[in-house]
Amino acid sequence: MLRKKIKKWRHVFKLDPNRLLSDLALKMICTSGTDAIIIGGTDGVTFENTFRLLERVKKYPVYCVQEISNHSAVVPGFDGYLIPSVLNTDQSYWIKGAHFEAIRTYGSLIPWNQIVLEGYVILNPEAKVARLTKCDANLQARDVTAYARLCDQLFRIPVFYLEYSGTYGKAEIVKAARKGLQYSRLFYGGGITDEQQAKEMAAWADTVIVGNLVYYHVEKAVSTVKWVKETKLRALK
Amino acid sequence: MLRKKIKKWRHVFKLDPNRLLSDLALKMICTSGTDAIIIGGTDGVTFENTFRLLERVKKYPVYCVQEISNHSAVVPGFDGYLIPSVLNTDQSYWIKGAHFEAIRTYGSLIPWNQIVLEGYVILNPEAKVARLTKCDANLQARDVTAYARLCDQLFRIPVFYLEYSGTYGKAEIVKAARKGLQYSRLFYGGGITDEQQAKEMAAWADTVIVGNLVYYHVEKAVSTVKWVKETKLRALK
Repeated sequence: MLRKKIKKWRHVFKLDPNRLLSDLALKMICTSGTDAIIIGGTDGVTFENTFRLLERVKKYPVYCVQEISNHSAVVPGFDGYLIPSVLNTDQSYWIKGAHFEAIRTYGSLIPWNQIVLEGYVILNPEAKVARLTKCDANLQARDVTAYARLCDQLFRIPVFYLEYSGTYGKAEIVKAARKGLQYSRLFYGGGITDEQQAKEMAAWADTVIVGNLVYYHVEKAVSTVKWVKETKLRALK
Repeated sequence: MLRKKIKKWRHVFKLDPNRLLSDLALKMICTSGTDAIIIGGTDGVTFENTFRLLERVKKYPVYCVQEISNHSAVVPGFDGYLIPSVLNTDQSYWIKGAHFEAIRTYGSLIPWNQIVLEGYVILNPEAKVARLTKCDANLQARDVTAYARLCDQLFRIPVFYLEYSGTYGKAEIVKAARKGLQYSRLFYGGGITDEQQAKEMAAWADTVIVGNLVYYHVEKAVSTVKWVKETKLRALK
């Protein structure tokens, strides 16, 4: 069950169906020892490109899930599905509206035990996803702690996802998120390009997600698996 | 723990701190055999009138919780706290915004194990609460099933609350909600005035909430406890 699986994820790659990746690079990613591959992206994601990428990943024995940004691009056959609910927006469509429409359409056909909700906080105001969802991405540490508590204690969402989307984040913000969490798993994604960054975020986040680096330096991307996995989570004082 | 307690609630009274209730009527309500008293309302609810009502209820050995509509009126000393999140609105403030502000203000002082979230669906478009929260209250049965699934399967909120707020609802809508629920407890509230209505809703809702009737026919309100408790939940076909 996905809900249990994610508790063991320490390192994950996120692949964008709308970007090109050679067979060799894909093989390196899928056999890297990462805990899972997430397929998803903000724009240009279609049923066709998602399906094609899934078919290619399926040649390898790696756990592969889809992160759903648009219900018309949902592809059957994944090991599981992650569904974001954006917390730092006032656009209800991105909190629960798109979800309601999908549930209203698919009704009892949805395989709920393969699905996990993610409480998203988007922290890079320049990112496409921030503009799309009209996020308030300029948050202080105490705001992030409050969103973490909202996600963890009030809504009990299994994943709290800090998304810096292409830029490298601030360790103090990731630490502020940890402060608010007991139950939700902390995912960090954004801008990791070297060992120091991979290890810094792996010290505070339960799960580190590497995306962009796959597309411009696949060897380094593969190394992030080792860097993250040899780092121990630090205790909060 | 409140989360466990609510699973046994079959009948509940809801008292409005902004309405007058004689000592005799209050005694009848508190000793009626109901499973709990909820104190809360939409307008005119203050710290002072909530505190005064709690003090009066506390003379009796009945479980008493506050339903929070406004964090400036939160009173310590209740057995627990219910926090509504309105699902059929596009105003993010009523979904998670007010909650975020409260968490941001009170931080680590919040006693989370005394708190339970409620997924609210408001079905009377004329109700004050519907206008306040700008709800889309004109829902079909399939919409209500979809909201139930959103609450139950996606968000895993412990309570799905169908609020008809002063008017008596439709059994088919309550049944449609049941269809979408596995995990969340179904609360029904609105317009129950006689035995037939109490029993009709008690056949489909896990918990029946009686509010208004307390204020204009307290003897009948007391009788709803018996009517609800002698009704068995009907199985969905």
